[in-house]
Amino acid sequence: MNYPLDICLLKPEEQQRRIDGLRLDSPALITDNANLFYLTGRVFCGYLFLEPGNAPRYFVKRPSELRGDGITLIRKPEEIGLTCPCLGLELDSLSYSAVMRLKTALNADDIVNVSPKIMLGRAVKTPHEQQLLREDGLRHAAVYSRIPALFREGMTDIELQAEIERVDRLEGCLGQFRVNGPDMEIHMGNVITGRNADTPSPYDFAMGGAGLSPSLPVGASGEEIKPGQAVMIDMNGNFNGYMTDMTRTFACGRLPEKALRAHQCSIDICHALAALAKPGVECKVLYEKAKEIAGDAGLEDCFMGHKYHAGFVGHGVGIQINELPVLAPRSKSVMEEGNVIAIEPKFVIEGVGAVGIENTYICRPDGLECITPAPEGLTQLL
Amino acid sequence: MNYPLDICLLKPEEQQRRIDGLRLDSPALITDNANLFYLTGRVFCGYLFLEPGNAPRYFVKRPSELRGDGITLIRKPEEIGLTCPCLGLELDSLSYSAVMRLKTALNADDIVNVSPKIMLGRAVKTPHEQQLLREDGLRHAAVYSRIPALFREGMTDIELQAEIERVDRLEGCLGQFRVNGPDMEIHMGNVITGRNADTPSPYDFAMGGAGLSPSLPVGASGEEIKPGQAVMIDMNGNFNGYMTDMTRTFACGRLPEKALRAHQCSIDICHALAALAKPGVECKVLYEKAKEIAGDAGLEDCFMGHKYHAGFVGHGVGIQINELPVLAPRSKSVMEEGNVIAIEPKFVIEGVGAVGIENTYICRPDGLECITPAPEGLTQLL
Repeated sequence: MNYPLDICLLKPEEQQRRIDGLRLDSPALITDNANLFYLTGRVFCGYLFLEPGNAPRYFVKRPSELRGDGITLIRKPEEIGLTCPCLGLELDSLSYSAVMRLKTALNADDIVNVSPKIMLGRAVKTPHEQQLLREDGLRHAAVYSRIPALFREGMTDIELQAEIERVDRLEGCLGQFRVNGPDMEIHMGNVITGRNADTPSPYDFAMGGAGLSPSLPVGASGEEIKPGQAVMIDMNGNFNGYMTDMTRTFACGRLPEKALRAHQCSIDICHALAALAKPGVECKVLYEKAKEIAGDAGLEDCFMGHKYHAGFVGHGVGIQINELPVLAPRSKSVMEEGNVIAIEPKFVIEGVGAVGIENTYICRPDGLECITPAPEGLTQLL
Repeated sequence: MNYPLDICLLKPEEQQRRIDGLRLDSPALITDNANLFYLTGRVFCGYLFLEPGNAPRYFVKRPSELRGDGITLIRKPEEIGLTCPCLGLELDSLSYSAVMRLKTALNADDIVNVSPKIMLGRAVKTPHEQQLLREDGLRHAAVYSRIPALFREGMTDIELQAEIERVDRLEGCLGQFRVNGPDMEIHMGNVITGRNADTPSPYDFAMGGAGLSPSLPVGASGEEIKPGQAVMIDMNGNFNGYMTDMTRTFACGRLPEKALRAHQCSIDICHALAALAKPGVECKVLYEKAKEIAGDAGLEDCFMGHKYHAGFVGHGVGIQINELPVLAPRSKSVMEEGNVIAIEPKFVIEGVGAVGIENTYICRPDGLECITPAPEGLTQLL
């Protein structure tokens, strides 16, 4: 056992800071695993009850061994035994059936959606969270440094991915890729090359790929990596429950000039956005800047896709891969100190693959701090 | 691209058989990825609209390239443009917010929960599904046959797991472990050994383990596999969107007599249940029989756990790992032809680890067909 049995693994002041950040004005019952981890530092089966002005209470189904103040063991939500005329619930992630059951169990006349407040709270990472993300970035970069040594001529995309997954796991990656909502499913990330970069996916990722099966239509499709192809690698960086998001592109043999130019443009966009972004800057301005740089380079046709264009160039990241804010044309968000965002200006070059990079940044008072320190240029595989 | 762009990858009669199996009596809008895969053979972003007596209609957000009869491209559910006074929705898996949005978008006065009907329909696998599951079982067994060669003295549980994951992926495993509901999260399965088998998990799996992080508290914990320990391996068998569930136990050095006896008891229980189960047999009878055999062997104290006892001995499996029926004391289910169940009588031996096996079976008219053909005895690692 590598961690203690305390119901709350956060320091009291750290937990209080996160709870205060939610700005709740009525009682709320939290049960989504990602939100429980945010507010207690652990996942358990049960409920966290928050009431403005009172200490947190925990209604725990499993494991029953957990210890600490405010714990009540229950077998089912009907045993919570509280009456809350107005109750906050995570309406964006809990099933309709679960919500109706909790509404009845707590005699709630009104239910209020606390999901948006929690997502806004989680978007501003505390110094402790920032430190966990920095540690992730270092370990993530260490895995990426080993990628060239994993490649062998004649490999398929999925064979290369399996070798990277192994190294990732041996370096301590938890494997799990937590996502928010039903529009993303993926296994440990994405390795795409050649025509597969042009294959649309149903999911809400920046890049697609056919995948190996119509049951999970995203990513590597089992095709051989051939000379003249770009290999884009966007793999899992979850080492401690927080995720950094990082993409690097590798060249198999000699790539056409447009691919080289587009890759450099992606680096330029990252650097330009990193210089521009700071607290108070509108997220849509960052998106427009990225699009402008791509347009000035004559690469608008392949920016964020070729057949299908993703409508964003970056996104918040933390406990889940798709957090706030989103760098998109219609975003109303403004960058705040403590936001952690992935910037991923990517280009799809027909027949070659996808090129570009993705870094994760912490928004500090004076600008962005890059926490995914790996060489950004195209790395030659062959 | 390894599969075509048709919106429905099932043969028309296969799709019709599955739709008929739902016994819908009002229109239903399906959008859960597992259910879309069941009813169309693929995951897409959008909605399948089913109305008794009419052909299926598809409202597709992404990918827009999909082809076939009955497709309408939409950007948001408000563009579906249907009016359904009474509308079936997947209330057990859709978020409350998603349900309310769909209710408004389709002008529904009443909503009906179609989740239970779909789970009941999915519990009876068609011959085509059974064949996919058989193929899975063979590939799953092929991966397991390579496990002894992956072990090296001094390895930790997670190091062994990473090597198995690599082989699993190279053999074509999709990696994804689809689960139903919020009470399970796992990465590609479970390797547990020693005291870690006694560590409770919040999740609804038969066995626990601390995991590597309180953000994903299940499974391998990073401890060295030592002589005298049992290593229980319960890894992912998802090669085509359907999953077989299989556990085998490996012995590191010499195990105590109780562990050997408990492992044999697990095999005996599987064989006894396989001989007893057939269409018409109550699932609770199967559970009681398993418990009786464990009790007769004097192993009731460690049956399905030592500190914490799981309250079931088997479960349906298919597109998700936790389907119907459940072999539990209060189950009201009766075995039906076409059910596919995993039977997993496991024992936790204090300080040694968990022992036992798990097989996946198809319920045929004359009894159970085992589709996970791998040697059942303890395999020596050292």
